[in-house]
Amino acid sequence: MKIGRQEYKSSALSTSSADTIVVRGKDLCRELIGKVSFSEYLWFLLCGTLPQAAQRRVLDATLVAIAEHGLVPSVQAARMTYAAAPEALQGAVAAGVLGCGSVILGAAESAGRMLADIVVRSREADLKAAASTVISELRAARKAVPGYGHPLHKGEDPRATRLFEVAEEAGLPDLHRRAARQVEELLPALTGKNLVMNVSAAIPAVLLDAGFPVGALKGVPILARTASLVAHLLEEQTKPIGFVLSHAAAQAIDYDGDLPQGFMADKE
Amino acid sequence: MKIGRQEYKSSALSTSSADTIVVRGKDLCRELIGKVSFSEYLWFLLCGTLPQAAQRRVLDATLVAIAEHGLVPSVQAARMTYAAAPEALQGAVAAGVLGCGSVILGAAESAGRMLADIVVRSREADLKAAASTVISELRAARKAVPGYGHPLHKGEDPRATRLFEVAEEAGLPDLHRRAARQVEELLPALTGKNLVMNVSAAIPAVLLDAGFPVGALKGVPILARTASLVAHLLEEQTKPIGFVLSHAAAQAIDYDGDLPQGFMADKE
Amino acid sequence: MKIGRQEYKSSALSTSSADTIVVRGKDLCRELIGKVSFSEYLWFLLCGTLPQAAQRRVLDATLVAIAEHGLVPSVQAARMTYAAAPEALQGAVAAGVLGCGSVILGAAESAGRMLADIVVRSREADLKAAASTVISELRAARKAVPGYGHPLHKGEDPRATRLFEVAEEAGLPDLHRRAARQVEELLPALTGKNLVMNVSAAIPAVLLDAGFPVGALKGVPILARTASLVAHLLEEQTKPIGFVLSHAAAQAIDYDGDLPQGFMADKE
Amino acid sequence: MKIGRQEYKSSALSTSSADTIVVRGKDLCRELIGKVSFSEYLWFLLCGTLPQAAQRRVLDATLVAIAEHGLVPSVQAARMTYAAAPEALQGAVAAGVLGCGSVILGAAESAGRMLADIVVRSREADLKAAASTVISELRAARKAVPGYGHPLHKGEDPRATRLFEVAEEAGLPDLHRRAARQVEELLPALTGKNLVMNVSAAIPAVLLDAGFPVGALKGVPILARTASLVAHLLEEQTKPIGFVLSHAAAQAIDYDGDLPQGFMADKE
Repeated sequence: MKIGRQEYKSSALSTSSADTIVVRGKDLCRELIGKVSFSEYLWFLLCGTLPQAAQRRVLDATLVAIAEHGLVPSVQAARMTYAAAPEALQGAVAAGVLGCGSVILGAAESAGRMLADIVVRSREADLKAAASTVISELRAARKAVPGYGHPLHKGEDPRATRLFEVAEEAGLPDLHRRAARQVEELLPALTGKNLVMNVSAAIPAVLLDAGFPVGALKGVPILARTASLVAHLLEEQTKPIGFVLSHAAAQAIDYDGDLPQGFMADKE
Repeated sequence: MKIGRQEYKSSALSTSSADTIVVRGKDLCRELIGKVSFSEYLWFLLCGTLPQAAQRRVLDATLVAIAEHGLVPSVQAARMTYAAAPEALQGAVAAGVLGCGSVILGAAESAGRMLADIVVRSREADLKAAASTVISELRAARKAVPGYGHPLHKGEDPRATRLFEVAEEAGLPDLHRRAARQVEELLPALTGKNLVMNVSAAIPAVLLDAGFPVGALKGVPILARTASLVAHLLEEQTKPIGFVLSHAAAQAIDYDGDLPQGFMADKE
Repeated sequence: MKIGRQEYKSSALSTSSADTIVVRGKDLCRELIGKVSFSEYLWFLLCGTLPQAAQRRVLDATLVAIAEHGLVPSVQAARMTYAAAPEALQGAVAAGVLGCGSVILGAAESAGRMLADIVVRSREADLKAAASTVISELRAARKAVPGYGHPLHKGEDPRATRLFEVAEEAGLPDLHRRAARQVEELLPALTGKNLVMNVSAAIPAVLLDAGFPVGALKGVPILARTASLVAHLLEEQTKPIGFVLSHAAAQAIDYDGDLPQGFMADKE
Repeated sequence: MKIGRQEYKSSALSTSSADTIVVRGKDLCRELIGKVSFSEYLWFLLCGTLPQAAQRRVLDATLVAIAEHGLVPSVQAARMTYAAAPEALQGAVAAGVLGCGSVILGAAESAGRMLADIVVRSREADLKAAASTVISELRAARKAVPGYGHPLHKGEDPRATRLFEVAEEAGLPDLHRRAARQVEELLPALTGKNLVMNVSAAIPAVLLDAGFPVGALKGVPILARTASLVAHLLEEQTKPIGFVLSHAAAQAIDYDGDLPQGFMADKE
């Protein structure tokens, strides 16, 4: 059945013949393989042009920054899934990717949309007023300000600091970085909490300053984390901890429901 | 409950304090972000050392080679999923990743294990005898020879050819590449079919020659395809075709079951 | 690291000893297996009490209504994924489940929240005013009215009609069903379109009338579709069409990007 | 591109017109909704006929038996995923479904194939000899005997015992149940371990005795667990423990990699 309007019937990403694969107008084998890095290729896939040096450098920096941070929930989900289903590495990676959500890991896009909104509004007001309005609107709608606060890095998120340095060194304009800093300055007064900018606000700040498309921002933590998941699943093959994780986690939780008459718990 | 032996209770990938994130012994912010590319970081996550130039070059080449090939099944699954559930880009990416299977896209690992097996056995016989034995064993077990034959690229898979050139240019040893070519030479006589080496055999051939871990081979198409999925989902945001794909696909299939009395199909 | 407030450290669903498994206070083996149907058990898992006859009947009806509707996008994603990765049936099912989204298949929860909201507001106004206000608010926020309109069933969705009959026969109160009908009556004037109630509004209408928890509404299409996905994957094992679907879908889409000089498309 | 042979271009599951939805030859709205239970409908989707009472009873029993067993890995993966990405309940369910693997939860199919193999071979030998041969072949191929042994239920898996009782009460033939018991008897001598039949062997034993299709066996734990996942995710909405689980799990694992000079761990 025809669902939706179905206006478009074309794609501009790739076509091929028996001997040539075309990606966004270039011959994959003659012009791209062996000539561009994977992150340059990512930019090319998304934007249709190869990145300039500053763009490539910032994109690499964000991917490196967010890929790995230890045994976080997405990694645990992947390692448990792989322990249960080692026949399908792709399933374990998918389970981890599904943890790139709005609460953790996947906030780069919503933070990016907020920063882009502030930058647009600051054209008709000053930056502080624009940021203040946007934060107030979020709070009125009972939404969190995405990209601020971190459970471990409370003084500053060192990845955010470093990403800003890299963007500075690369000579990028700083419109979105300034918006991100402005939000950080306003938050204590507006929320009563000292929420520092975390990596999920820094990533869109530096990438939007580099001209990266806002609709692909969430792809950055997803792609980066995929690399880390593969590394964890490689480790799981020789030093399996998937079921150690689930055992320890289950022990931290009590059962607080009813019990049938005569039920006796086992002694551990 | 304790499942399995639970011998290991450690991981060597990452630890952190409030101000420092450690990845495989290095300080993420001071030593890695802004200093290494994403593919160098992938190698580092997997191997614990940064890649040499030849290793990095070949890894980049494989990731670029396998990322994008048009509207293949994994991409279609992702675009349909995103059209149905635009609230969760991560879900659409996961649906695509799940298509990195043993039949298409995910054969790099099984091909790599076959090539590694041939190389090991060739130490005690010649390469041709080793390859012949391994192929015969696969066929006796009614398993396909992974990494040979392609529905479109029947004369040669240009990506395979190009990856071998890049490995040659990079000056890598060629043990696994020779094994891959040996298999290709033997297949017509052993199978009666002219099955050319495809990208899923070329990827492990060049990566194993570079010292890449065999247990992470399947991660290469998974990671590469993730980049392409993000590009397709970005396009889907402005030129949606997810439901056009499903409509055209459904029209290609007839219903051949029973019908209740009096059922009248609609006229299209 | 501690993420979030972590206030709760308990679960009321299940505990067990070596010889007894407890689910919500009952002994699984002595009181449930062989004594209750799967849908009665679902209700028990969600609510902690076994359903009354009317509740069970309506729950069964909704699960049967939404499970199967031919080669819809979620089914296609699952069949393509299985064709590519037959080693992991669970991966193909997961790919299909991921298509239970806000646009199609997964609208039962948002429709249910809308109906519940209308019922609450109708206590202080009449039903028509409450429904009108809620629809206007959705439209002011540029959100679709969930659960109305269907690409094939334009005159009426026969599943919606039948579900209302079943709820009537079962003698359930009709607060949410009346809200659903009220919305249907108002839509032509408020939107200029004749959007009939579809199964995704009828499911929450009858289930909320039966006392089903609103937070589990989305679980109904997810669980129901999972049954259908298993049936499609069983068929795929003997009559594979996964790659027929992807081939037909790809042929419906043109490439509209640039081409490298000298590129010649293959003749089909 | 055309992948594979593409012999079939039809499906026998469903077709529809604007006013009628046909499922396996029946009118969904007139003949099924409100008339059959969800588990009867599952059987109908898989087999094309409605189940007899004994078949329905055994199918219900297996679905109830395997659905819920506390905070097992698949449930933890789902709850962690939902805590990170509450915008997509379907993603959390999918993450849990992906844990229905060959090692835990998903062994019903491989156990079923083993039992079916034993039954076929027992036609030309006695049951004990057939079972002994099949077990020996598995062990020669270094594969586990699927469906025996359980980390908690070491004396007996009470669900297995109960499922056999239900099948007995339902008056089903016992070919596959006898094969399952025969394997249990042989294992101590053949493996040196006292591995009792668990629920993943009992499920295929009773279902194959009822005429359930072997290719859909894995669908039983997948579908059953989906119901349980929905219940856990409903609980997660009001008593969130997703991040408590991940915190406790991470604390059970030490970092055993290198540290950069001067790194100081935080005091907890």
